[in-house]
Amino acid sequence: MTTTERIRAAREPARSGTSACLLAVDWGTTRFRCWLLARDGGILGERRGDEGLRSAAAAGGFEAILERHAAALDAGPALPAFVCGMAGARGGWREAPYLDLPAELATLAEAAVRVPVARPTFVLPGLARRGAERRDVMRGEETQLLGLAPGDALVCLPGTHSKWVRVVGGRVADFATSMTGELFDLLCRRSVLAPVVGDGAVDPADPDFTGAVGEGLAEPGSVTDRLFGLRADWLLDGTAPERSRARLSGLLVGAELAGAHRRFGPPEATTLVASGPLADLYAAALASVGTPAARIVPAEACVRAGLLAAARILLGGPA
Amino acid sequence: MTTTERIRAAREPARSGTSACLLAVDWGTTRFRCWLLARDGGILGERRGDEGLRSAAAAGGFEAILERHAAALDAGPALPAFVCGMAGARGGWREAPYLDLPAELATLAEAAVRVPVARPTFVLPGLARRGAERRDVMRGEETQLLGLAPGDALVCLPGTHSKWVRVVGGRVADFATSMTGELFDLLCRRSVLAPVVGDGAVDPADPDFTGAVGEGLAEPGSVTDRLFGLRADWLLDGTAPERSRARLSGLLVGAELAGAHRRFGPPEATTLVASGPLADLYAAALASVGTPAARIVPAEACVRAGLLAAARILLGGPA
Repeated sequence: MTTTERIRAAREPARSGTSACLLAVDWGTTRFRCWLLARDGGILGERRGDEGLRSAAAAGGFEAILERHAAALDAGPALPAFVCGMAGARGGWREAPYLDLPAELATLAEAAVRVPVARPTFVLPGLARRGAERRDVMRGEETQLLGLAPGDALVCLPGTHSKWVRVVGGRVADFATSMTGELFDLLCRRSVLAPVVGDGAVDPADPDFTGAVGEGLAEPGSVTDRLFGLRADWLLDGTAPERSRARLSGLLVGAELAGAHRRFGPPEATTLVASGPLADLYAAALASVGTPAARIVPAEACVRAGLLAAARILLGGPA
Repeated sequence: MTTTERIRAAREPARSGTSACLLAVDWGTTRFRCWLLARDGGILGERRGDEGLRSAAAAGGFEAILERHAAALDAGPALPAFVCGMAGARGGWREAPYLDLPAELATLAEAAVRVPVARPTFVLPGLARRGAERRDVMRGEETQLLGLAPGDALVCLPGTHSKWVRVVGGRVADFATSMTGELFDLLCRRSVLAPVVGDGAVDPADPDFTGAVGEGLAEPGSVTDRLFGLRADWLLDGTAPERSRARLSGLLVGAELAGAHRRFGPPEATTLVASGPLADLYAAALASVGTPAARIVPAEACVRAGLLAAARILLGGPA
């Protein structure tokens, strides 16, 4: 079997029942999410918390946090846990060193690192692009890719640090990161633009948003000028915060698209891995510049599918 | 006399003595600076404080702050005060509405707004670029321009919000703002890059800085990718904070230069208005991309000269 076939086989719904087979854990810098999964991928229980890496020590340490949530889900001590995200970073729970590009997605499971605790617990590695320049890293998104199991695709995973990933023949060939979400957050909350843009959601259908996407894509070099222009609009014209917020978001997303176009070429058919408002926003942005997403897949479904696939690859095929 | 001739006449050293003729005040969002100036422009005394706009109310209000510093400088109650900067903004001490482009620099003095306090006190207006798009504003830099009194020039005033200004025949024809300094500060202190870049000064001669300036200028659309790349360099190679900090600064300055080139054309001869390390950094950046500054003028000298010129224009020529 090729790698892609192996992953696809691992993702096939199991024939047998709905008893719990896995604690699937997405453990990030600021958030903890965990699902109790059945063999067929069904969700038997779910827990969310704010015990991310930053607060894990204060919350009693990694094992105690996991076991607290496991107990709440009635997950017995023999049930395996698979963990992705920053918990596998240096300074996290247990370091799972980055795999280098090009990387077969199935090797993520094989490189999982066992954590020395009572419960059989495995942390998945991230991916790294090494070399002379444009080094880059991901932790968490690779598990979404494993769950997505694309053959050939350009995948956009928007977020705090948006990832654009070129997958060729089931292997991650290249990727790039744009700090779009973090810049948006810093500018909204901490910069001179805070009173200008207010808070609240951006409407993906707002022409201020889509117009600004086009500006950011066409002239990414003018984005820092245009950002301050939002303040000028507010001072001179009393522009409403929701309009300026839509423009701020659009300018940053447009600049991200410009970077992705330059790196990967204009996307013929992007797969968008995102949920909720973020999915709507990126779908609208991609459509507004004439490159609509070919497929939109919910991010959490990909995480769960990726952790389940990893468990099946490492611990045995579907029952 | 033309406007430029009037300003130049107003900037001529006075023949008579060294007695105090002006309290020159640069009152920004976070800083207060004030000089007691002689008729010939000589500095008889100087005060600096952190009673910027944000903390003015807590510090007893604008008049009390000014009078406290005036008393420390032994400046009698009849001595006029000229104020530039955010104190003239809406929500500041007394609003001095923006003058529109194109703006004769001398009209800044004529549009000064008298503050209704015992001391003869005037607040200088800022400048605004209105119109359908690329609206922009400045407050403070226009007074530096008045002090600089350029005939025809492209002027770069780097800082928290860097300004690039095209002056034609003594009139401000156009300008643009880049949030370079604020972005650098946010990314260094508040972002995921904080541990990556550490703190400390950037060496203008560091090839990491000048190399990154070139990258930002050549590919401004790749800057948000390259920012996250600093984190990857740190994670994968343990790149030293001072190197990453130099690259962060260089990328942002390079993107600023790219925006200025696009807007104003490649600068044939930029006048750089800046002091200290910031002047050294921008001088190195401009030189590294083959467009060295034609002239470097200390920013505070320009502020003082501008406030003195405004006082002379409004209250009478040099004695």
